[in-house]
Amino acid sequence: MRTLVSSLLISATGLALTPAPADTLLRGFFPQSVQAERDLEARFKAMPDPARMREAMRRLSARPHHVGSAYDKDNAEWILGQYKSYGWDAHIENFDVLFPTPLERIVELISPTTYKASLQETAIPVDPTSNQQTEQLPSYNAYSIDGDVTGPLVFVNYGIPADYDELERHGVSVKGAIVIAKYGGSWRGIKPKVAGEHGAIGCLIYSDPRDDGYAGGDVFPAGPMRPAQGVQRGSVADMPVYPGDPLTPGVGATKNAKRLSIAEAKTITKIPVLPISYGDAQPLLAALGGPIVPTSWRGGLPITYRFGPGQAKVHLRVKSEWSLKTLYDVIAKLPGTTEADQWVIRGNHHDAWVNGAEDPLSGQVAELEEARALGTLYQQGWRPKRTIIYAAWDGEEPGLLGSTEWVETHADELRAHAVAYLNSDTNSRGYLGIEGSHSLEKFINGVAMDVEDPESGVSSWKRTQAARILNGSPESRREARDREDLRIGALGSGSDYSPFIDHLGVASLNLGYGGEDEGGIYHSIYDDFYWYTHFSDTSFVYGRALAQAAGIAVLRLANADVLPFAFTNLAETVQGYVKDLQSLRDRRAEQIADRNKEIDEGLFKFTSDPRDPVTAPQRQQPAPQLNFAPLLNALDSLNHAASRYDRAYNRAVGEGHPTVAKSVNERLLQAERALTSAEGLKNRSWYVHMLYAPGFYTGYGVKTIPGVREAIEQGQWQDADREIVRAATALEREATLISQIAATLSGGT
Amino acid sequence: MRTLVSSLLISATGLALTPAPADTLLRGFFPQSVQAERDLEARFKAMPDPARMREAMRRLSARPHHVGSAYDKDNAEWILGQYKSYGWDAHIENFDVLFPTPLERIVELISPTTYKASLQETAIPVDPTSNQQTEQLPSYNAYSIDGDVTGPLVFVNYGIPADYDELERHGVSVKGAIVIAKYGGSWRGIKPKVAGEHGAIGCLIYSDPRDDGYAGGDVFPAGPMRPAQGVQRGSVADMPVYPGDPLTPGVGATKNAKRLSIAEAKTITKIPVLPISYGDAQPLLAALGGPIVPTSWRGGLPITYRFGPGQAKVHLRVKSEWSLKTLYDVIAKLPGTTEADQWVIRGNHHDAWVNGAEDPLSGQVAELEEARALGTLYQQGWRPKRTIIYAAWDGEEPGLLGSTEWVETHADELRAHAVAYLNSDTNSRGYLGIEGSHSLEKFINGVAMDVEDPESGVSSWKRTQAARILNGSPESRREARDREDLRIGALGSGSDYSPFIDHLGVASLNLGYGGEDEGGIYHSIYDDFYWYTHFSDTSFVYGRALAQAAGIAVLRLANADVLPFAFTNLAETVQGYVKDLQSLRDRRAEQIADRNKEIDEGLFKFTSDPRDPVTAPQRQQPAPQLNFAPLLNALDSLNHAASRYDRAYNRAVGEGHPTVAKSVNERLLQAERALTSAEGLKNRSWYVHMLYAPGFYTGYGVKTIPGVREAIEQGQWQDADREIVRAATALEREATLISQIAATLSGGT
Repeated sequence: MRTLVSSLLISATGLALTPAPADTLLRGFFPQSVQAERDLEARFKAMPDPARMREAMRRLSARPHHVGSAYDKDNAEWILGQYKSYGWDAHIENFDVLFPTPLERIVELISPTTYKASLQETAIPVDPTSNQQTEQLPSYNAYSIDGDVTGPLVFVNYGIPADYDELERHGVSVKGAIVIAKYGGSWRGIKPKVAGEHGAIGCLIYSDPRDDGYAGGDVFPAGPMRPAQGVQRGSVADMPVYPGDPLTPGVGATKNAKRLSIAEAKTITKIPVLPISYGDAQPLLAALGGPIVPTSWRGGLPITYRFGPGQAKVHLRVKSEWSLKTLYDVIAKLPGTTEADQWVIRGNHHDAWVNGAEDPLSGQVAELEEARALGTLYQQGWRPKRTIIYAAWDGEEPGLLGSTEWVETHADELRAHAVAYLNSDTNSRGYLGIEGSHSLEKFINGVAMDVEDPESGVSSWKRTQAARILNGSPESRREARDREDLRIGALGSGSDYSPFIDHLGVASLNLGYGGEDEGGIYHSIYDDFYWYTHFSDTSFVYGRALAQAAGIAVLRLANADVLPFAFTNLAETVQGYVKDLQSLRDRRAEQIADRNKEIDEGLFKFTSDPRDPVTAPQRQQPAPQLNFAPLLNALDSLNHAASRYDRAYNRAVGEGHPTVAKSVNERLLQAERALTSAEGLKNRSWYVHMLYAPGFYTGYGVKTIPGVREAIEQGQWQDADREIVRAATALEREATLISQIAATLSGGT
Repeated sequence: MRTLVSSLLISATGLALTPAPADTLLRGFFPQSVQAERDLEARFKAMPDPARMREAMRRLSARPHHVGSAYDKDNAEWILGQYKSYGWDAHIENFDVLFPTPLERIVELISPTTYKASLQETAIPVDPTSNQQTEQLPSYNAYSIDGDVTGPLVFVNYGIPADYDELERHGVSVKGAIVIAKYGGSWRGIKPKVAGEHGAIGCLIYSDPRDDGYAGGDVFPAGPMRPAQGVQRGSVADMPVYPGDPLTPGVGATKNAKRLSIAEAKTITKIPVLPISYGDAQPLLAALGGPIVPTSWRGGLPITYRFGPGQAKVHLRVKSEWSLKTLYDVIAKLPGTTEADQWVIRGNHHDAWVNGAEDPLSGQVAELEEARALGTLYQQGWRPKRTIIYAAWDGEEPGLLGSTEWVETHADELRAHAVAYLNSDTNSRGYLGIEGSHSLEKFINGVAMDVEDPESGVSSWKRTQAARILNGSPESRREARDREDLRIGALGSGSDYSPFIDHLGVASLNLGYGGEDEGGIYHSIYDDFYWYTHFSDTSFVYGRALAQAAGIAVLRLANADVLPFAFTNLAETVQGYVKDLQSLRDRRAEQIADRNKEIDEGLFKFTSDPRDPVTAPQRQQPAPQLNFAPLLNALDSLNHAASRYDRAYNRAVGEGHPTVAKSVNERLLQAERALTSAEGLKNRSWYVHMLYAPGFYTGYGVKTIPGVREAIEQGQWQDADREIVRAATALEREATLISQIAATLSGGT
């Protein structure tokens, strides 16, 4: 489901451009264990085979395989067979989830001229799977409420809250209107949510050619970009409230689960939504009247973009079939030995919107090759200390269904046993993108240093470092050169890590290569084997690199003597977040004060152009000072504990005392859990992590220390101080746990 | 000729949003003179009449009136008659200049498909002057050399030097190619110059719809923007070397002037150039192969923009008729009384590329109303202290011909007598834009405070201040609130002030309203009465405001007891320029060092995408330290002298000693001359001002302290120290002069 390679991320140890010492490179291994691990990894790295990935992609993408389709089940069974043939203990776990599929879809301009949208992606002769129309899901947005509405049309740019402020200042209201928004700028589900909050009665979302059409290159099949009839499908369920089955929040959607009625499900949209192509959007946009939009709103169509509405009126009808569908999660195990009750989990979804060669099979075929390689090592006699669980999730596209329902079903076991969750999704050429828990930042940097980039021949770590030095902001350039580890981004949402980290507090990482290829087939019928093998990682060498990176991470987590968490990275990162929050408050306070002063002075009145009048923004209440002391105190504790742990770890690992390790590991795997709060975030208690969450108004984009940050951003000042205390409490808990582990480690040396 | 309202500029005194004390508002007037001046100005301000401006525009734009056309002469004679009827002593002054007009124009794509460019702007039924094809100059670039070339086509973005670095890094050469550049990003004449320097054999320039076509609004005649067939004409003479007649650099193009041969004229292009419409450009651009251009290069056509060349091959033929044509400058005088040998000069051109309603008549009709009002006051008995000269220049469009030849002809008199030159060109709705000599910054701020903005009802000063506070950078916002005067921009080139300030060192100002209306008719047949009266200052109230602003400035300069120069503004501005230069050197040094290090480390190699390889940039010599001490010492002198002058001025004006003023004024009008150096700028000795010049590689855009700045920018380090000394010498000369005047003022009090 994930669409963009987010902030490149990679890590390493040692000074910039200098290899790190061996012990940090193999964080978590006693000196006496390093060579065996290195030998094992060398054997592992040689195994993933691009030719097999290519064949697996061809097989899995041969037919549409969305949730509920015959080929979705067929794929799951084939994957199950693969795992079994690799020697894994594997099974399919089923869930029954609400998944609407379209019955009726109408978009038509009825004034000032008429135009009926085709809503049809056409088959392309050279592309052999594009004509499987009887099996394809028509273009739609899953979890749009049914509706039949007619109203004036208004263009709302990306449809995020700031866009509505701009509309209001130009005197354009969306009350009773159907809005048309560009894809991008936020996760798609935010668009109907915010439109509905502003009184709109319907929502269209289109792919502007400036963003993924002809502006970026030739359109498919001449090139990789979106053709005029291409449509981005996708879920619009309100995932920032909770992902997974809308009818079973917080519990597994097993056969006999207690279910909400559809009317009770909070994550279904309040207004009907439909995605359309830029071919269908152009006549609608060209019909708009009203003022001309700001430069930053303009797209790549050869028209004048206007706010609307003018004469433009649109009829929108959406109706779905709302039955339960069955999910097929493939779950496979290699049992651990000495620490079998510590689980290292790895996953990638297998369901797609249509044929899904890139999304998700480019990642799925890498995961399969990892599994084959691990199975081969296992058959050759290697045994992991810890239990390894590989998952091929179903139902990710509609809303992380397969992973969420599995996590909710096994929540207690996972809280007790999960060491970490390692996710991937789509994969292409370029740079190793990494996001995740900052307690694993140092660890994953070490992995990236040991995986060769297929194009440049240097490590994936070094290639990302080079890009950051060349293209980063001054701050990012300096860090890329001087910081021991390349900084990793925090996890928002948009793929199957979300239930692990957000709902349980399982330390998680998300890996994938990207950044070199543009494409415009996301969630369309053109995301298929023909497209991928012509325009993306055509030789599957980046598929191999992903298998190497993720596989080595799994091997190290499974074999480590001491779990390779490093809390100084966490503490330093959180310190940055707290500084961000402080300056965010100050900036907001200054903006509000400035703005109010400007309003009082009449500056907006003086500068309004009578031919395109713009009103002054609303006055806002001045921002109060906040009491950051609890967070700053907690940071002190965390910094202190992390340093103490580091010293103890360095001594213990340096001297290699295996007797200490077991009790330490049992508590180390709880360290991420300490960062959660049982009551969860305000108005969305499913999200319990106090450091990371997808933004309530961004959808995929992360908000760090979300309780505090969103209170400040949304001007809910009365909440901010309380949220500071809650976040501080989690950090204090974390500090206490780490200190205790450090004491144990020290006592044992 | 001027195309954009550059940095808004306005000025005032007193604290932000607080009216200034009367003495500074009427800078230069003794207390006992203020009331009479204010009364006079009140009478003056009531006179300019929008209805008369409208009728004058209709009359002057009724037929095409480019240099050499019958209607150009007819207009000049009509303007002459107007001045005479207003009571001015007026005459026409003629010059004979080289002005090529097109005989043959061919642009055709000959591979991989064929397309013959129409090169024709079509008549539009509702627009009554658009069909005057027999009198219209066809679309072309004046002073393109004749040529007939065929070669591969390469897209060069705006065609500035940095664009060629990008091309080179993508392995695309323009040697032997015809380049196609977008209008914008630099003055048009820079494009063929830089293309030729890189080995191109021809140059096309087109108007991209993202810049002034449908992206910004409906196209003409439905809206103000450029239609698909609209073409921007314009001169491509190398004006940064010298403007005016290419055959008579430095001397007036009088009947018997010694002329260069055409082959000797340095300002004619080295390769043939032709402008085309986006209708004609689209098939050419769509035919390009090669890598996809960076995002910032992309325009608004519904195509994939590529560098080229691929298969695209173009044939370009340009041939002109190269005879001399006669210019008709209208020169009118109101004689001064007590200080008749001090001249206050005001001008706006009257020639156009075609009908020229906006450019230049929107400014010309305001100037005519000023002249009528001044003439009326004169007939009512008012007499200016100083002589007022109003000019309506011919031949501005091809290269500031009329003003330059007049200035060169009268150079000695002007050096002796010119107090200041006040220019305008096009005018539209919005904000009073002001650029000019910083010794007049405080003066013109005072004028802007006394002219009401027609839309907001506040002063033009206050409206600009409001816009700067709302939309400026943090630094600009702070200054707009706190600085006594709103900062004015420096003059580059692009209108008739250039010979005055750049060639003689006459203190100059350029005024014009703008910033609210978008338009796409610049230098096309659609810049006419129909367009202007539908889409610009349709009620001519901003024409009246311009007449009020410029007229009051003329009145104050002509009547002031002490010429209203203020040198603290100059000193503070130059101090900023020097700081800029120091940080420019440091930034360049750091960039070069960083870049060289990145090259040495292989970072470009590591990040190059094999499917779109990008080579490392060239290593550059490290930047040496420069000796800024002479400039810093000169600044100290200037600051000291300016403060001394301020104190003396405040005392003298406060006490009002008329006996002192005359000798002071005679030297004050030389103050701008002190900033010039007889030997001029490197490789372009026509430009003698040491603080301001149009950039050698920007064309219109100003370079401040140009000798030093361009040496640093172009990495000609050996020149930089020498240029620092030359600039410092001019500043020391200025400081000495100001100190002497201050001493005289003090002695007299």
